[in-house]
Amino acid sequence: MSAAERPLLAITMGDPSGVGPEVVIAALASRRARAAGRALVIGDARILARAAAFTGKAFAPRVVSNAKEASASRSPICLLDLHNADPEQIPIGQVSAAAGRAAADYIEKAAALALAGEVSGLVTAPINKDALRKAGVPHAGHTEMLAALCGVKRVAMMLVHGPMRVSHVTTHVSLREACEIITQERVLSVIRLTDEALRRMGIAHARVAVAGLNPHAGEGGLFGDEEIEVIAPAVEAARSEGVNAVGPLPPDTVFARHRAGEFDAVVAMVHDHGHIAVKTVGFVPASVGRPSAGAQRRRSAAMRASGVNLTLGLPIIRTSVDHGTAFDIAGKGLADPTSMVEAIALAAEMATRR
Amino acid sequence: MSAAERPLLAITMGDPSGVGPEVVIAALASRRARAAGRALVIGDARILARAAAFTGKAFAPRVVSNAKEASASRSPICLLDLHNADPEQIPIGQVSAAAGRAAADYIEKAAALALAGEVSGLVTAPINKDALRKAGVPHAGHTEMLAALCGVKRVAMMLVHGPMRVSHVTTHVSLREACEIITQERVLSVIRLTDEALRRMGIAHARVAVAGLNPHAGEGGLFGDEEIEVIAPAVEAARSEGVNAVGPLPPDTVFARHRAGEFDAVVAMVHDHGHIAVKTVGFVPASVGRPSAGAQRRRSAAMRASGVNLTLGLPIIRTSVDHGTAFDIAGKGLADPTSMVEAIALAAEMATRR
Repeated sequence: MSAAERPLLAITMGDPSGVGPEVVIAALASRRARAAGRALVIGDARILARAAAFTGKAFAPRVVSNAKEASASRSPICLLDLHNADPEQIPIGQVSAAAGRAAADYIEKAAALALAGEVSGLVTAPINKDALRKAGVPHAGHTEMLAALCGVKRVAMMLVHGPMRVSHVTTHVSLREACEIITQERVLSVIRLTDEALRRMGIAHARVAVAGLNPHAGEGGLFGDEEIEVIAPAVEAARSEGVNAVGPLPPDTVFARHRAGEFDAVVAMVHDHGHIAVKTVGFVPASVGRPSAGAQRRRSAAMRASGVNLTLGLPIIRTSVDHGTAFDIAGKGLADPTSMVEAIALAAEMATRR
Repeated sequence: MSAAERPLLAITMGDPSGVGPEVVIAALASRRARAAGRALVIGDARILARAAAFTGKAFAPRVVSNAKEASASRSPICLLDLHNADPEQIPIGQVSAAAGRAAADYIEKAAALALAGEVSGLVTAPINKDALRKAGVPHAGHTEMLAALCGVKRVAMMLVHGPMRVSHVTTHVSLREACEIITQERVLSVIRLTDEALRRMGIAHARVAVAGLNPHAGEGGLFGDEEIEVIAPAVEAARSEGVNAVGPLPPDTVFARHRAGEFDAVVAMVHDHGHIAVKTVGFVPASVGRPSAGAQRRRSAAMRASGVNLTLGLPIIRTSVDHGTAFDIAGKGLADPTSMVEAIALAAEMATRR
């Protein structure tokens, strides 16, 4: 693909105090990310210069004043400098209203560009929920904010890691509340969104497995009736619409079957069914035995960086790293950019197929 | 270890219609199982002869009339023939009251021998819950039955797979009911039982991670308060008793950290947190792409056979395969004996250390 054909992606810098700026710079230094798409980083030039020093990577973007300029540019990496985060006032590794406000600005700008079609997709670096709250941003996180900016109500989170693709009917609610809000309509909606996302990844007639909520998928009603009352009718409805969905299947084996190639994706009912499957597999231990504290810290950073988040249901393409701001390791050059590289690659792939 | 020093283990044949008899025979043909312990199979000679034909393995146990005879024998494999399952009346792959009754007999006999100290431990092949019910057995499964036979109330299930050891505070109840029955006392009890089991596996001062119930372990009360109200106090209580417990930790990363060697075991709050972690990792796909129906069936059998179940809280050692009766593949020579081999090895190891 020639440079001009590669999609232009908006990449938000994330919370200026966290590992976001570092992983953006480190990811854009990788061949895989540069081959996938052209980048329009949305952030603050001063914070990015500080981060470049930690990573030891060169970061010399072309500074542009709007997306059209980036689009016309031959430079693979452009920067839209919002000049809203002063390093003097935003120390590394701390929650602050100033950092929260700056992070929200990047998201708003990037979403506007994507909605206007000036970029082909949006890749986000991590933000801090406390910082957002302190800044008075009325959204719990990225997903809620993007749903509001795009004017949609029903979104879902898909975790992607290698061949594993897992979408979630519920995410950031208590397990008790999750049990309450799993409705037939909600399950059907996430099955549809999952099928649609797979088509955008180039998989036609995708085989979508729908996991149960209860142990053994309820064992015929013995351990809960949500499978019978809610999930099975949703799967039936999806099938009648032509989606190749099966289920509800026992949660404890469906992910192993997915790994083995039997399905193209799994719809999980709750956050941790899906997240445990992806994250426990995603991290392959580098060594055994009792590691040193330093090795544990590095390992823990590596673990946080193993997958990609894809938001389903938005009118724009949006991927995200699968880790937080990691204030404990920010500024130490320890943050692993793998998740950001993969988030860029996935967004670019979906943008190319669109 | 000389033959006489190897512990004598009672091995129940399981439901005569399922894969139990096959996996017992195939497992006892393996060097690993034979090196670990001596076997007193408790079952029916006619059913075992039928199963030997499916597996293509020789099975020529010494038939004994009681455990003392087996203990004194130099034969590595003895059989206590209860003569209670007629192959003519018990077809393969079908639920029946006769099979359920026979399976219950094996468990009762084996438990009695273990309680009397005539065997060093108990390894069980799979039974069918419907068959038990049809036979009028007043217990939902193995664990409930053994708890009653041993006169204990609080037991817990640990899944063991390679270096992964995961015990469960709740198992075969709906997710809604699990949320209701997770009490501080119950969590503390499972932490204690886990620590005790690890000591029996030769791990002193074990590092026990306690997972949360809710996403992000409740994120400070934002997604549920069980971590604050119930789990954290239980961890504190365990620590004050000298157990090296930490938590509650986010369920989605604690198992990856366990895999990486940071902890010796994880205490999971619900069935599928623990089971998804162990089973998704346990099965390593042999190939990718869309497999043939035959390959899928074989693979599915392999998946069911990846771990070992250990019952905590009984006065006797009891391990079990981590798969069901698999009626769909019973009698076809497809059942993978790996889980049974590992169940025998773990019971023998714990019996030796006792």
